[in-house]
Amino acid sequence: MHIQQMISSHPRLLGQTNETLVRCIEACYDCAQTCTACADACLGESHNKPLLQCIRLSLDCADICAVTGGIATRRTATNEDVMRGILEACIVACRACAEECGLHASHHEHCRICAEVCRTCERACQQLLAA
Amino acid sequence: MHIQQMISSHPRLLGQTNETLVRCIEACYDCAQTCTACADACLGESHNKPLLQCIRLSLDCADICAVTGGIATRRTATNEDVMRGILEACIVACRACAEECGLHASHHEHCRICAEVCRTCERACQQLLAA
Amino acid sequence: MHIQQMISSHPRLLGQTNETLVRCIEACYDCAQTCTACADACLGESHNKPLLQCIRLSLDCADICAVTGGIATRRTATNEDVMRGILEACIVACRACAEECGLHASHHEHCRICAEVCRTCERACQQLLAA
Amino acid sequence: MHIQQMISSHPRLLGQTNETLVRCIEACYDCAQTCTACADACLGESHNKPLLQCIRLSLDCADICAVTGGIATRRTATNEDVMRGILEACIVACRACAEECGLHASHHEHCRICAEVCRTCERACQQLLAA
Repeated sequence: MHIQQMISSHPRLLGQTNETLVRCIEACYDCAQTCTACADACLGESHNKPLLQCIRLSLDCADICAVTGGIATRRTATNEDVMRGILEACIVACRACAEECGLHASHHEHCRICAEVCRTCERACQQLLAA
Repeated sequence: MHIQQMISSHPRLLGQTNETLVRCIEACYDCAQTCTACADACLGESHNKPLLQCIRLSLDCADICAVTGGIATRRTATNEDVMRGILEACIVACRACAEECGLHASHHEHCRICAEVCRTCERACQQLLAA
Repeated sequence: MHIQQMISSHPRLLGQTNETLVRCIEACYDCAQTCTACADACLGESHNKPLLQCIRLSLDCADICAVTGGIATRRTATNEDVMRGILEACIVACRACAEECGLHASHHEHCRICAEVCRTCERACQQLLAA
Repeated sequence: MHIQQMISSHPRLLGQTNETLVRCIEACYDCAQTCTACADACLGESHNKPLLQCIRLSLDCADICAVTGGIATRRTATNEDVMRGILEACIVACRACAEECGLHASHHEHCRICAEVCRTCERACQQLLAA
């Protein structure tokens, strides 16, 4: 991805980059893609009933991460309350999805990876929120 | 829209409908569309510089409302923490966007309508959160 | 929804409204919501295996309709090739989803409604494409 | 991103990976993020009027790439017509956005990068379409 290059060429950031921000944006897009893949892989398992909660959480988490990544990407006229609100929602979704995926990690490699990616995204959002 | 009919035919809701939920979903999709239109109309104004904050907030609010409407639509294996988290983020975004659009309401009819639609969505999300 | 009011207050449309455009935008948002609901209702059915294709098509159709509705909403500096391209993709998705949902219409009311809403959206996109 | 790992753990792909598919998904998410950043950077420029077309195309291209990336990610019960339709729409959007951004590449580094990322995504979609 080209997150850092795009940030450093933004007219209002004067060449600054921000490692915490870059990592959060990257984690959000990664998590959006991974959760979309995990929901789909769970759906395709021969017994998907025990994975219903996992499918649902992955769909929700994918949607929230995609929006969070997009909002964090925008740097013109940012509203800090809105930024904080969506980061908090993203942290909740990533935590819930990581917990649920973690329950299936020993049976399904896609759930194991997804749990890990969700945890990374949760931490990246918390670090941006604290910054 | 067909929100109520879809809810009442959901296998897990047994014909129940839920007025507060239906109104919230409807308000979210309405607000997603209206904010997309307001960001675009502001961008197309001959002097868009005083509307930068309005464009940015409308883009963010549109994204958050769309995701909130989608998550509220899903009724299988709902995670209440995630639902609450995104409703809270949506309330913050709608409030901020309504305030900013309200500042331009006397000059731009699209901002006047958008402020009103955001207020309606904010209330609908609060009512669902309280339910 | 406030589609017509937002179009008639757009700075570049000078009070014009466009019935075909309004109907298409409305149909896209309706179809995005309905397909999201149908994918979720199918997932929640006690036997969802025969509905796998229906779930997948509804997820894809929901995503494409949401994007098409958003792009059709924007009226500043429209690129006609992009508009046509996404309308064509939307027509394909709505047709495929309507056909698949139609196969389950006698068993599942949500599939019957979804098939109908997809057909309406397919037609509304075709009419805008022809305009 | 974890695209390849998620594909190789998908229950229906039996450990296969598909380089063309992986590259296309990666290019779509990259392009969605980059176009979102370019629209926002253009909006934040002190003279954004000559960039109106660029802002609009970047918003549309971001939306279409995000949806295309999500649909290409799903591997359960894929409908080939829908896949082809959205890939074709994505090619049109990337080409149009690359051309427009290319016009501003010598003045704005964010447009230069965005044009390049759009070209990469256009090619990756064409290669998947041909496969």
